Amino acid sequence: MKIVVAGSGSWGCALAQVLCDNHVDVMVYGNNPAEINDINENHRNSKFFEDVELHHDLKATMDLNVFHDADVVLFVVPTIAIESVCKQIDPILTKKIIAVNASKGFHPQTNDRMSNVIRANISKEHLSSVVSLIGPSHAEEVVIRMLTTICAVSLNEEDAKTIQKLFSNDYLRVYRGDDEIGSETGVALKNAIAVASGVLYGLGYGDNTRAALITRGLAEMIRYGVAMGGRKETFMGMTGIGDLIVTCTSKHSRNFQAGYDIGKHNSAKYFWDNNTKTVEGVRTAKVVHDVAHEKGIDMPIIEEIYKVLYEDKDPKESAKDLMLRDLKHEMI
Amino acid sequence: MKIVVAGSGSWGCALAQVLCDNHVDVMVYGNNPAEINDINENHRNSKFFEDVELHHDLKATMDLNVFHDADVVLFVVPTIAIESVCKQIDPILTKKIIAVNASKGFHPQTNDRMSNVIRANISKEHLSSVVSLIGPSHAEEVVIRMLTTICAVSLNEEDAKTIQKLFSNDYLRVYRGDDEIGSETGVALKNAIAVASGVLYGLGYGDNTRAALITRGLAEMIRYGVAMGGRKETFMGMTGIGDLIVTCTSKHSRNFQAGYDIGKHNSAKYFWDNNTKTVEGVRTAKVVHDVAHEKGIDMPIIEEIYKVLYEDKDPKESAKDLMLRDLKHEMI
Repeated sequence: MKIVVAGSGSWGCALAQVLCDNHVDVMVYGNNPAEINDINENHRNSKFFEDVELHHDLKATMDLNVFHDADVVLFVVPTIAIESVCKQIDPILTKKIIAVNASKGFHPQTNDRMSNVIRANISKEHLSSVVSLIGPSHAEEVVIRMLTTICAVSLNEEDAKTIQKLFSNDYLRVYRGDDEIGSETGVALKNAIAVASGVLYGLGYGDNTRAALITRGLAEMIRYGVAMGGRKETFMGMTGIGDLIVTCTSKHSRNFQAGYDIGKHNSAKYFWDNNTKTVEGVRTAKVVHDVAHEKGIDMPIIEEIYKVLYEDKDPKESAKDLMLRDLKHEMI
Repeated sequence: MKIVVAGSGSWGCALAQVLCDNHVDVMVYGNNPAEINDINENHRNSKFFEDVELHHDLKATMDLNVFHDADVVLFVVPTIAIESVCKQIDPILTKKIIAVNASKGFHPQTNDRMSNVIRANISKEHLSSVVSLIGPSHAEEVVIRMLTTICAVSLNEEDAKTIQKLFSNDYLRVYRGDDEIGSETGVALKNAIAVASGVLYGLGYGDNTRAALITRGLAEMIRYGVAMGGRKETFMGMTGIGDLIVTCTSKHSRNFQAGYDIGKHNSAKYFWDNNTKTVEGVRTAKVVHDVAHEKGIDMPIIEEIYKVLYEDKDPKESAKDLMLRDLKHEMI
């Protein structure tokens, strides 16, 4: 079996290294010459992992032909790039691939989930099924082989089993799931909640407030996910509360960090002026805000974080409105 | 209305100070002369709060007669002391009090919940009802007036409303709840899960593992709570997932810290030899272990933390058994 990982960022490299550890034939595809060289020549991905030496079998290429006879393709690119990457790859494919989605978010124009975007942009004759490989997993920990649990979520049970077997080892435990809507919605929304969690921390709020925010954030995620057709129980698992916790409480989270900077400077301007990495929660907040308005779903946390990011609302005011006024409303 | 807080520890002082801020007539009762003097003379509780100056209206006494004409009594004492404190106070009471329980755990012999222990030990003519005031609330943050949300949980709605009004202000938001079993079980069990979370951290596991543990811990809490007669939804709120998160992820948690020390030294002996504060999760693990065995409830995390604490099991082995072997079992 030949696996190609599309995306040479932190999570792409971490997942490819898991496959190297498992003695699977894998190649990373990327379009950034510096990153590709760093991987091939230095066994490093210095932009994301300081001081981590990658598996020496891990190789990367900028040659699109690498997808030619791939059996499995991992899509580990920002949500804004996934459609164009699919379109680039599709004409090159020769086999019916299992497409593994590892991105967490929505299409920026159609607001659609990643599985649907892949299905819409890879020809039927080239696609067995989509499997989302998602859960509470900071790349920074997986790359140093710290114990992590994730889920292989798919409507196709056989393909999910194949992916589960390929990636499972003694530090990466892979569950299976079949609630594609619930799981993909959960892992997307938690990024936006994590931005809010970061803002509160940056403003000086403490652990008690954060726990309250996460609790209310989960309720919001469930409301949204169920309205989209997901199952409530899914949000109690790894792709729901699990991924929410890790993103809202860990220093590794770019979403939390973006929010933290916004809170610290009491303005979203600092983030917009200085950010260089993909922060999915920022885009997700916009998508969810728009869809929630359209469908009449009550999302007070998303509402406030949207106002801070896109309407220049004062973060301090936003936090007060969220944690004081709205809580009052929620009280029985 | 006259309120007396039984217990001069960190949470007793923090809650009493909330009442001072709200201009309510309140007195702290305690039996430790050093703590009582510290509060009255220095406006401090130095054992728990370094560098915090308490409200100057906050006063404490060792005179049991303070309970004489109390309208509301807060029980903020360790779970092992609550029965004896009730028995001491009961003969002195002259009014029908609202008994506010702020302890999180079970009776060490009968394994009963705190509300039941209070009801069993305060005469009917002295008791209007029990209200549990519980939720994600580290005393260290409440005492410096950081925004916190808790719940007033009671079978008596009117008394819950009275307590909600007494304690609510711009930094303490009080919800109401009526699932006494679910809420009291939730806040008790999370302490034991937090010990396990600390052990994993002390052993060097990271944020990904912790998120997995919390997710599985919540599932265990729900299994136990529902078997006891609690409602599943309660565990999705402040006294469930909210309190679980704050205890499993905060440096302020004694339960997390106890586990951390055990993990760091890879032995429970260090904890047993050096601990001076009440760590409820350690006792709760024993109670829940025993009850779960009796009733046939599957509690793998509780099982392992019990073995580490009471059967001298090697924490590293325990973590491996829990996070590797058992996860394998859970995989579909």
